[in-house]
Amino acid sequence: MHAYRTHNCGQLRETDVGNRVRLSGWVHRKRDHGGVLFVDLRDHYGLTQIVCRANSEPLAVLEHLRAESVVTIEGEVVSRGPGATNPNLPTGAIEVVADSVTVQSAAEELPLPVAGEADYPEDIRLRYRYLDLRRDRLHANILLRSQVIASIRRRMIDQGFTEFQTPILTASSPEGARDYLVPSRVHPGKFYALPQAPQMFKQLIMVAGFDRYFQIAPCFRDEDARADRSPGEFYQLDFEMSFVTQDDVFEAIEPVLSGVFEEFANGRKVTPAGQFPRIPYREAMLKYGSDKPDLRNPILISDVSTHFEGSGFGLFARIVGDGGVVRAIPAPNTAEKSRKFFDDMNEWARSEGHAGLGYATRKGGEWGGPIAKNHGEDKMNALADALGLGPDDGLFFAAGKEAQAAKLAGAARTRVGEELGLIAQDRFDFCWIVDFPMYEYDEEAKKVDFSHNPFSMPQGGLEALETKDPLDILAYQYDIVCNGVELSSGAIRNHRPDIMYKAFEIAGYSQADVDTNFAGMINAFKFGAPPHGGSAPGIDRIVMLLAGEPNIREVVLFPMNQKAEDLMMNAPGEVTPKQLRELHIRLVPPSGTAPKDPAKVVAPE
Amino acid sequence: MHAYRTHNCGQLRETDVGNRVRLSGWVHRKRDHGGVLFVDLRDHYGLTQIVCRANSEPLAVLEHLRAESVVTIEGEVVSRGPGATNPNLPTGAIEVVADSVTVQSAAEELPLPVAGEADYPEDIRLRYRYLDLRRDRLHANILLRSQVIASIRRRMIDQGFTEFQTPILTASSPEGARDYLVPSRVHPGKFYALPQAPQMFKQLIMVAGFDRYFQIAPCFRDEDARADRSPGEFYQLDFEMSFVTQDDVFEAIEPVLSGVFEEFANGRKVTPAGQFPRIPYREAMLKYGSDKPDLRNPILISDVSTHFEGSGFGLFARIVGDGGVVRAIPAPNTAEKSRKFFDDMNEWARSEGHAGLGYATRKGGEWGGPIAKNHGEDKMNALADALGLGPDDGLFFAAGKEAQAAKLAGAARTRVGEELGLIAQDRFDFCWIVDFPMYEYDEEAKKVDFSHNPFSMPQGGLEALETKDPLDILAYQYDIVCNGVELSSGAIRNHRPDIMYKAFEIAGYSQADVDTNFAGMINAFKFGAPPHGGSAPGIDRIVMLLAGEPNIREVVLFPMNQKAEDLMMNAPGEVTPKQLRELHIRLVPPSGTAPKDPAKVVAPE
Repeated sequence: MHAYRTHNCGQLRETDVGNRVRLSGWVHRKRDHGGVLFVDLRDHYGLTQIVCRANSEPLAVLEHLRAESVVTIEGEVVSRGPGATNPNLPTGAIEVVADSVTVQSAAEELPLPVAGEADYPEDIRLRYRYLDLRRDRLHANILLRSQVIASIRRRMIDQGFTEFQTPILTASSPEGARDYLVPSRVHPGKFYALPQAPQMFKQLIMVAGFDRYFQIAPCFRDEDARADRSPGEFYQLDFEMSFVTQDDVFEAIEPVLSGVFEEFANGRKVTPAGQFPRIPYREAMLKYGSDKPDLRNPILISDVSTHFEGSGFGLFARIVGDGGVVRAIPAPNTAEKSRKFFDDMNEWARSEGHAGLGYATRKGGEWGGPIAKNHGEDKMNALADALGLGPDDGLFFAAGKEAQAAKLAGAARTRVGEELGLIAQDRFDFCWIVDFPMYEYDEEAKKVDFSHNPFSMPQGGLEALETKDPLDILAYQYDIVCNGVELSSGAIRNHRPDIMYKAFEIAGYSQADVDTNFAGMINAFKFGAPPHGGSAPGIDRIVMLLAGEPNIREVVLFPMNQKAEDLMMNAPGEVTPKQLRELHIRLVPPSGTAPKDPAKVVAPE
Repeated sequence: MHAYRTHNCGQLRETDVGNRVRLSGWVHRKRDHGGVLFVDLRDHYGLTQIVCRANSEPLAVLEHLRAESVVTIEGEVVSRGPGATNPNLPTGAIEVVADSVTVQSAAEELPLPVAGEADYPEDIRLRYRYLDLRRDRLHANILLRSQVIASIRRRMIDQGFTEFQTPILTASSPEGARDYLVPSRVHPGKFYALPQAPQMFKQLIMVAGFDRYFQIAPCFRDEDARADRSPGEFYQLDFEMSFVTQDDVFEAIEPVLSGVFEEFANGRKVTPAGQFPRIPYREAMLKYGSDKPDLRNPILISDVSTHFEGSGFGLFARIVGDGGVVRAIPAPNTAEKSRKFFDDMNEWARSEGHAGLGYATRKGGEWGGPIAKNHGEDKMNALADALGLGPDDGLFFAAGKEAQAAKLAGAARTRVGEELGLIAQDRFDFCWIVDFPMYEYDEEAKKVDFSHNPFSMPQGGLEALETKDPLDILAYQYDIVCNGVELSSGAIRNHRPDIMYKAFEIAGYSQADVDTNFAGMINAFKFGAPPHGGSAPGIDRIVMLLAGEPNIREVVLFPMNQKAEDLMMNAPGEVTPKQLRELHIRLVPPSGTAPKDPAKVVAPE
């Protein structure tokens, strides 16, 4: 018989009754029933009920042992009998009558209970992460994460991609977020940087002639924490393809994303591969007020500016007259909603820093509210007809300069959808946002600048750059969005030095600027570069969506807290003067003055 | 027709003749045959021969284009005809007659040719790694690496393991090699460390109740470069299992290693799973003079000390009399070897810092050399009989203190095997080295200390620690060795604080020492820890073995050079004063004095 177990704790069934078995696991729960002790023994695979008979040796040992001690039990599998089975437990038909027990590890009093669903403060949970991870939900989330990643890998390989590891100790990048730096011992005064993303490497992999690269890639950004981003490190499905158009990228990745989501959706509906809607950026900003639209929300925003030209509602008429816009957000079937519902929405908009959210109520075709009154019933009816509204559909209005109005309309669309319960909870709705503008006008600097990624290929190539108004030029750049969450940005890259120089020239940068700041990439492109493109969906966000967890720390094995500390490992920590000397650095206390003796500000060697 | 290709460059066959196709790739080679231009077009998948007819537009474009330019070709597939096929090329039955060509990227003059097998200086190869990677051998090595890793993953998952990602920004460890440190911006004066291995994390994953963990884990050690270890980062197949004995670990991993090697062995013979020899450490040191024996070498070392007690060969008699040993290394079938062969071996041993390597020659049963003469023919015959030698088998002798003699014998065994061509080149011979001693006597410190890993479980547990001579206690610790290369160390861990304290006490450390230095692990073990164990075979070494490459830089995508520099990315590099200020550090020039103005020693912001 194996030293620790003949079966795991999720394995025994009615067919095992009568067999002698050995099980090992954690003491999950104990219950004393009139001298008989019931112990739920737990391992990675499940729970098995152990029975310790009155006056038995196992009872004597187990009754004094704390929960979460690790024991090995030996005994006979018996049937629980028809009345006593637990249908919620895969092993619920049986129990094991223990006749011997070995204590592998006796637990001290716990800082955090494992059985039960009680909430505990986050710092306790993170400090004792190895206990928190024993709890059902977190255990399941972390396994889900592993399964999702394994499924992504399998699907990427099936699509002809090859996984490569790119360096983690690399060079500081001249743009983007803040780098984590690593002082070099061998090269005094020089530093490695941890990669914010393997962007340059994956493009060089294409230049090196590999065709379809992917990596479950660790990325590092020294930025403050957010709910959907860990401080420190996060993972993305980094991929890149050669000799592809934007359509090829979509065709390659839609089956992977749709397939993974379907595999773990538990019956929730997923946009099928090949059917991801492609929404131009400008259309998204109009209809959804966002470039991350949640398509589960059926509400569509419309531009109704022309309806208010010279309107009796003077505010909107003036806004439109001054070049602004009015956007309408339908509030379907709100005839029975109180005036307070509409006023609260207006208050919410003000609290978010907007001038306010106008509205018109409607019940059985009758309009209500000051906008409708001033605009007039006929014009309101014409507007409602143009929007295809029903007689009980109210309306909210976001008015102002286009960018501001679009943003307010988008936020209002989300809030109205939530308030009215219109957002389907049983779906994963994917879309692509495409046709991002290459340039935008920077109001502060009073100049044209790149609007997103300077390294994307402009649609129309060199000719477009040479002949079109820069603000009309679109880029082969695309975002993947699911349920209002941006999973990634991607692009067909600009692989042509001549087009690169021209694109930067439009934004006011000289050829020398480009050569100085992006030497590595530009030089590589001069030795034969294939057209290429890719993207990098966020792994953590995918798992968060599938697990239904709003906080990234619930889907990461050993996360840092919001202050970028690992409370379990005590990282970051102090280091010795010897370590600092070896790295040719000394500490500067926050006051800003360097200490005379570095030994005084660090731990003793 | 697709913008870039209807087929890849490895795809077209005789059955495609007559079709119009579009191909994209790199201009690998050009050959002018009497006005007709032949171009080998290369991509990730293969080579296709392109024909540009005299006076055609494709010829006009391609004849002026440099090798490694990227082009798209359109034309018709034609048969090369029976005499002209190239059987070494999968596409060798056809060629494509180009009628149009588009230049996607014109190459400048190359610093490094791609076609051909010419050697180039390593710094050029690393600086232009994206060109070097286009070359056949390196391209194949990197793909092999990816395939090996994918195969390992698949096999580990099939064995019931789950892959987890452990943190890369973590805490500095109190022992082991030198850490890479990352200064914290948020916590002045504190540092993260990159993990030397996820050792503590994987043990905490077991404590957290996950059963079988693995990870293709990046590891970081700030040590100087070796042929088999990159400076900076390397990868290992890190794994750990709960509720296991040493045998369970072997049973789980042998199928993975044997399976992966068989998959990529190209017909070389691999030790089957379940048949890896298990060699106790002391036996390995005796028979192979090494704890990393190359079992492809048939030579076995024997201890012949007793043969030389009171021998006529006074040197050996004295060594044995003083408690030393004499080890014999057979040199099979060396009757025809010159005296020089034996003398050169002796010279080699001296050049390695040993006192010398004695020998006895033998031809048709006749002994030669001073040792045989002084020891006497009868005694030499008795020795040869005891060792089972034939009449033409010579002998080398390593004599001295046991550890030194064993080491010399091991080195001589390898050299004799190599010189005599006895090492089989068509095999991957695996073995486990087991039963490492828990403690050794430290001659310098005059005390008992741990001989390898203090965290391994001693065989016999607490009882052994309390009752046995420490130098007789063995550990549940094991190495995996293949063809003389150590792939990994592993152990059944000591999960019991009481046994841990006792084990450290024997080596002279107090409970307080243990609590201070290993608080995280010891504390976790107090809340219910399962018996567990694992190992961590080196990925880079596995790929080196399979690829037959002696240098790790040939199996890593973007390696650093031996000075820990990435010549392609210019890492490590200088950073700005702002970056240093944010991290609360300043530079100390190698002279040791801090500069007054940090701006003077770093690049301008």
